[in-house]
Amino acid sequence: MADELAIVGKSLTKPDAFAKVSGQTRFADDLALPRMLFGRILRSPHPHARIVRVDTSRARALPGVLAVLTGDDLPIKFGILPVSQDEEALAREKVRYVGDPIAAVAATDEWIADEALELIEAQFTELRPIMSIEQAIAADAEPIHGTSNVHKAVALEFGDTDAAMLAAQHVREDVVFFEGNTHLPMEQHAAVAQYGADGKLTLWTSSQTPHYVHRALGKVLELPMSRIRVIATPNGGGFGGKSDIFSHELVAARLAMVTRRPVKITLTREEVFYAHRGRHPVLMKVKTGLTKDGRITAMQFRSFLDGGGYGSYGVASTYYTGALQATTYAIPRYRFEAVRVFTNKPPCGPKRGHGTPQPRFALETHFDKVAEELGLDPVELRLRNLPRPDSRTVNWLRITSCGLEACINKVVEGSGFLERRRSMPRGRGLGFAVSSYLSGAGTAIYWNDMPHSEVQLKLDRNGGVALLCGAIDIGQGSDHILAAIVAEVLGVALEDIQLTTADTDLTPIDLGSYSSRVTFMAGNAAKAAAEKVRGQLFEAVARALPCDVDDLLARDRRIVRRNQPAEGVSFAQAVQLAEAAGGVVTATGSYTPPKLAGPYKGSGVGPSPAYSFSAAVVEVDCDVRTGEVRVPEVWIAHDIGRAINPVLVEGQVEGSVYMALGEALMEEQTFRLGLHKFPSLLEYKSPTALEAPVMHTYLVETIDREGPFGAKEAGQGPLLPVIPAVANAVYNALGVRIDEIPITPDKVLKAMSDRSKRVGPASTPAFEFPPLIKADVPEEWKGK
Amino acid sequence: MADELAIVGKSLTKPDAFAKVSGQTRFADDLALPRMLFGRILRSPHPHARIVRVDTSRARALPGVLAVLTGDDLPIKFGILPVSQDEEALAREKVRYVGDPIAAVAATDEWIADEALELIEAQFTELRPIMSIEQAIAADAEPIHGTSNVHKAVALEFGDTDAAMLAAQHVREDVVFFEGNTHLPMEQHAAVAQYGADGKLTLWTSSQTPHYVHRALGKVLELPMSRIRVIATPNGGGFGGKSDIFSHELVAARLAMVTRRPVKITLTREEVFYAHRGRHPVLMKVKTGLTKDGRITAMQFRSFLDGGGYGSYGVASTYYTGALQATTYAIPRYRFEAVRVFTNKPPCGPKRGHGTPQPRFALETHFDKVAEELGLDPVELRLRNLPRPDSRTVNWLRITSCGLEACINKVVEGSGFLERRRSMPRGRGLGFAVSSYLSGAGTAIYWNDMPHSEVQLKLDRNGGVALLCGAIDIGQGSDHILAAIVAEVLGVALEDIQLTTADTDLTPIDLGSYSSRVTFMAGNAAKAAAEKVRGQLFEAVARALPCDVDDLLARDRRIVRRNQPAEGVSFAQAVQLAEAAGGVVTATGSYTPPKLAGPYKGSGVGPSPAYSFSAAVVEVDCDVRTGEVRVPEVWIAHDIGRAINPVLVEGQVEGSVYMALGEALMEEQTFRLGLHKFPSLLEYKSPTALEAPVMHTYLVETIDREGPFGAKEAGQGPLLPVIPAVANAVYNALGVRIDEIPITPDKVLKAMSDRSKRVGPASTPAFEFPPLIKADVPEEWKGK
Repeated sequence: MADELAIVGKSLTKPDAFAKVSGQTRFADDLALPRMLFGRILRSPHPHARIVRVDTSRARALPGVLAVLTGDDLPIKFGILPVSQDEEALAREKVRYVGDPIAAVAATDEWIADEALELIEAQFTELRPIMSIEQAIAADAEPIHGTSNVHKAVALEFGDTDAAMLAAQHVREDVVFFEGNTHLPMEQHAAVAQYGADGKLTLWTSSQTPHYVHRALGKVLELPMSRIRVIATPNGGGFGGKSDIFSHELVAARLAMVTRRPVKITLTREEVFYAHRGRHPVLMKVKTGLTKDGRITAMQFRSFLDGGGYGSYGVASTYYTGALQATTYAIPRYRFEAVRVFTNKPPCGPKRGHGTPQPRFALETHFDKVAEELGLDPVELRLRNLPRPDSRTVNWLRITSCGLEACINKVVEGSGFLERRRSMPRGRGLGFAVSSYLSGAGTAIYWNDMPHSEVQLKLDRNGGVALLCGAIDIGQGSDHILAAIVAEVLGVALEDIQLTTADTDLTPIDLGSYSSRVTFMAGNAAKAAAEKVRGQLFEAVARALPCDVDDLLARDRRIVRRNQPAEGVSFAQAVQLAEAAGGVVTATGSYTPPKLAGPYKGSGVGPSPAYSFSAAVVEVDCDVRTGEVRVPEVWIAHDIGRAINPVLVEGQVEGSVYMALGEALMEEQTFRLGLHKFPSLLEYKSPTALEAPVMHTYLVETIDREGPFGAKEAGQGPLLPVIPAVANAVYNALGVRIDEIPITPDKVLKAMSDRSKRVGPASTPAFEFPPLIKADVPEEWKGK
Repeated sequence: MADELAIVGKSLTKPDAFAKVSGQTRFADDLALPRMLFGRILRSPHPHARIVRVDTSRARALPGVLAVLTGDDLPIKFGILPVSQDEEALAREKVRYVGDPIAAVAATDEWIADEALELIEAQFTELRPIMSIEQAIAADAEPIHGTSNVHKAVALEFGDTDAAMLAAQHVREDVVFFEGNTHLPMEQHAAVAQYGADGKLTLWTSSQTPHYVHRALGKVLELPMSRIRVIATPNGGGFGGKSDIFSHELVAARLAMVTRRPVKITLTREEVFYAHRGRHPVLMKVKTGLTKDGRITAMQFRSFLDGGGYGSYGVASTYYTGALQATTYAIPRYRFEAVRVFTNKPPCGPKRGHGTPQPRFALETHFDKVAEELGLDPVELRLRNLPRPDSRTVNWLRITSCGLEACINKVVEGSGFLERRRSMPRGRGLGFAVSSYLSGAGTAIYWNDMPHSEVQLKLDRNGGVALLCGAIDIGQGSDHILAAIVAEVLGVALEDIQLTTADTDLTPIDLGSYSSRVTFMAGNAAKAAAEKVRGQLFEAVARALPCDVDDLLARDRRIVRRNQPAEGVSFAQAVQLAEAAGGVVTATGSYTPPKLAGPYKGSGVGPSPAYSFSAAVVEVDCDVRTGEVRVPEVWIAHDIGRAINPVLVEGQVEGSVYMALGEALMEEQTFRLGLHKFPSLLEYKSPTALEAPVMHTYLVETIDREGPFGAKEAGQGPLLPVIPAVANAVYNALGVRIDEIPITPDKVLKAMSDRSKRVGPASTPAFEFPPLIKADVPEEWKGK
């Protein structure tokens, strides 16, 4: 009997699939508790204003209204990052975007709650709204917070880039813009709070970060943490948009405490468009110096992020726009400057690929132009600048495995890119781009010195395996991954694993479903726990048979001798032997990423225990009369390390492609007088199944030494190369450069009629970045 | 800072009390799931009959009926004891009591389900019903099972009792009868089953033994155990009546599997009276030999149990009628013979004091008579025959601590028994009795070689403590006990403990809430787990301070140096230190009782790791014209070992007294043509609050070396002496002996008018007991 894998690597059905397809899954909004009230939130109609008065007396008098809250009922500020505790559950003095929460009601039904909102009289003194990056950094701008609208400014340099630019044989500079967009999950945000007669608060919420919500509730509600339980409900789509702390979560909790009745708040679709924390609009400048033969000698990169009204994850987003340039290319000298400003728009935060699609768009279109200038094909330019496996980048990031070259070869060969792009009819084109992404952040937002992921296993003497983990499955399949890893190690069936996840009372920590960390980190914890528990079983079985522990194998719900598989016991019998000897058979496993941050401020954002790599070729079919761009076919390759469940990885890859195409071609979040222009599923353009291209997905396995069974991330990285590949394909098809996302028909038409054959920003605004922090990695580390 | 106890020993509010008094507790019948169906069971109208045909076609055709089951749908037999697998979820060939389930329906509401039951046409061939012990053992009796109505016959002898009787200076023999009665919990039995789209069955049930239900479901439904989850819902009273496997649990599960919709079955109050597994009616003969000065030299005891239609726990009940005679008195030679017969009445099983109130009634009235004959006061007779601490009884039971003498002194002094009983006016009297009981059975029904109780703790880095245990709180307060023990050891507050109990997926094993085992066994497991986890915290804190591990103390949510309590860290900080060092902080604790069974068959029933002791004085006020007996005052003392929560123990003691008075004076379960005479709360007489006496409760603490913090049982033992004390008080009041429970007014009047001044059975029937198994404990062990 060999040691081949039985479950890992197989395309199996996810454990939660049955309940989802049969409608048995109960999402947060499906929950109903006895005597439950319905909460609604009154939101600011102004983008920027001082609150003069909020009169709730008429609302309170409405029959069926049980409670009305204003800012004074929840005065403690919060925020997801320790450095950005700038939000109030209900605004007290100022509102900073249309949609900023200012009051809340709980009533016996939604209609009464809505009616009560209309009875709340709020008076404001309007302030001049800041609606763009330029306005925000203007000298006379009305400050949204404090005394300046600069939320965060960063300036880092690794090596002497100015000198390298001067010495470079070829230099090119580009300015591009990436408009903001939203996550558009199928499930709107919802939370149900219950405050027990015993003084225990329970919050069920559609969240990607239940442990951080737990923490924020403790702070804002001033309750001992042990009196609060947060349960993340099955998540109907997150994509980063449910990883913040949300007003409605805190408000539902306080309303439940005040009324002593359960309270549910489900955001309307329109509210989600305002409360969502979407993708940052980012204006960027990239300048690269190269040798004649296309080897990068230096890069300088600038980002201007439009952060909206609050901090959210924005400090991290700011660093992320610069962190991963050097993991995709071997860049020997690198300067990064970025600024995030406050504007009177909904606050921006993480969305799939957090901080990275924008610079990736900048970089990959930039290199398409560079390649043309150097007379190289775009593939060759990348191949000449590949990052090396087992190396450190100039900004201290440690690359373990790297399958980028294999990814490039897959999509180039699969699509016939090199030949076909030279012979496409007008209006049709092929574009190419590459990327890399992180497998979880190496630095935690809180509790960085403790494990980032923990898994607890308890074996039942009847053969069941209870698996407890704080991770929340947001559709990416983390439940399956955890179950598959444990089933693989223990030699049981997937359905023998009973999962309990994302319950702050019951489950040990997993920091959350963000930054593509769960498969990697919780997966490593699960593997460690399963191996420990298997050790206990092997010891008991080895004593009973007797035989050597090393001679045992767990397979097919049995523990048997490797070379005499008829000799052995059932899995349940093995549990009973171990339990008789040592009590209940349990084990825990933890994962703490290696400390990889470099010796400079902000270095914590970017280091990951391992990086994924992707390459994409996109074919476009442009209507030269309407400017409409269609995508009939996409070739995408992703270095997944190891595909624990290939069909799940393919789902993540294809979902990423699909989301990328929406961002590339149609999705945008823009405002008129502070109001969202498209705050509904009818108005906000997003691709439907009809727009889905034929996709060719190639999984490249590099068996990363840090990942569980060698796995790396899959949920975000594959989105990244697709957007610039679309832009590059449009250039191939029409000879025009759309240096601004989304690539809408009006921009295509405009570029075709413009002399420069280009649409995009001309320059970046004048801004005084802080003095450069210089911290290049030691020369001798670069090869490691 | 001293080591005194902070939580253990304090009368604190139970964690579940808040939800219970505020109505937030959701019992099984309160559960409602989407698309839930309602199940109902058709039951036999005949006490004994062959099933000829069950035609369900008309029921199936009724709109709103989703499924109809008959015995062929659940053909696999089951039973709580491995030796009594004699039940069918729905009877296939024969019915054995009025109420025996024969068919079941699931419908969209209860009314349609009821209507459907009426449309099921069942044809029977009636058989001669067996309605008494005498009929059952008659030579020509129609056998209810197999070829004989003798379910179990036992004959044991420890020492030569016949010789001792011949040599005794005083011998007395009595025959008494104890009628059956029922538990009368406020909550009727209910179960909700759900069969997920993933093929996973979940059963929520009002059960005392979820792990045994789990096992039976696996057997009867032929599902892998890992595909079944049993969750015991908060229990609205069990008293032993929810410790069996019930037809409706299996039927609800199968209905859910067939319909693929959740199914709830809640028994009607009338159904509970039939399905309940109540107290056995027992006819007994007790014969004791003594010295002139009242020292017991030998005892012979015979029990005849009326078991009803099925085995249930009956084999254990049979042994229990003989096991505990020698733990209450130092009996040097003891013979025990017993037989349990099948009759066509509802099957009998365990009720508070399982198997023991009947022989205790026999013994304690017997010794009241013996004392009178010997010219001793009843107290003195007991004091001359006290069991010794740290000894083995003649039938191999090991006594650790024994506070019986202290209990006797408490009630005798408190009531002024010795003086007042000589000077009571006619109609008023005082009665005295003593007893002992077990703190959990030393032998498990299943998995005897593995731990009987297991507790798992997981500490949250925010300071919460998750406690997982299979134990189910049936009102006895086990949730509180577990939380209090863990909070005491860890130095946190009760409300920091988050309990998850009685969930076969999540919680490690506790065998169930029966035989007064939970505080003792799960309590020991909890203590062990808490001590392990505290050790991990101490190590981490000792490293951090630094100091010696032995110098640390956990108190008031802090871990501090014993002699410098200002030096230390908060509990949450300690968890974080430990978690940073070694991953998630968890530990498990297990308890396996010592193997104490003697070398004879049946010896497994009776040995307990420790025994509780009780003494009671009851005052009666008899109406000589009506025969009505009232109880104005009760003095009760109970050797609890250690009262972990005194108010809880007092609640258990007073609840036991109250239940005992009901059994002593009014409750009875009797049948006419197989039909229960009193199957409703209107007809079945049970005491109300108006009948509650003034109670004087004395807790005697002997700090047992085996119990957690020295605790022993409280939930059952205090019931035992009360019933005979009532009978003895009636004799003191009226000079009549009612040797039959309950002591109803008609019996009192009859005895007063009878020349013998006695009511009760004259003799026991002729029955050939099996040959005696002789197995007395070695002489040298008796003092140990």
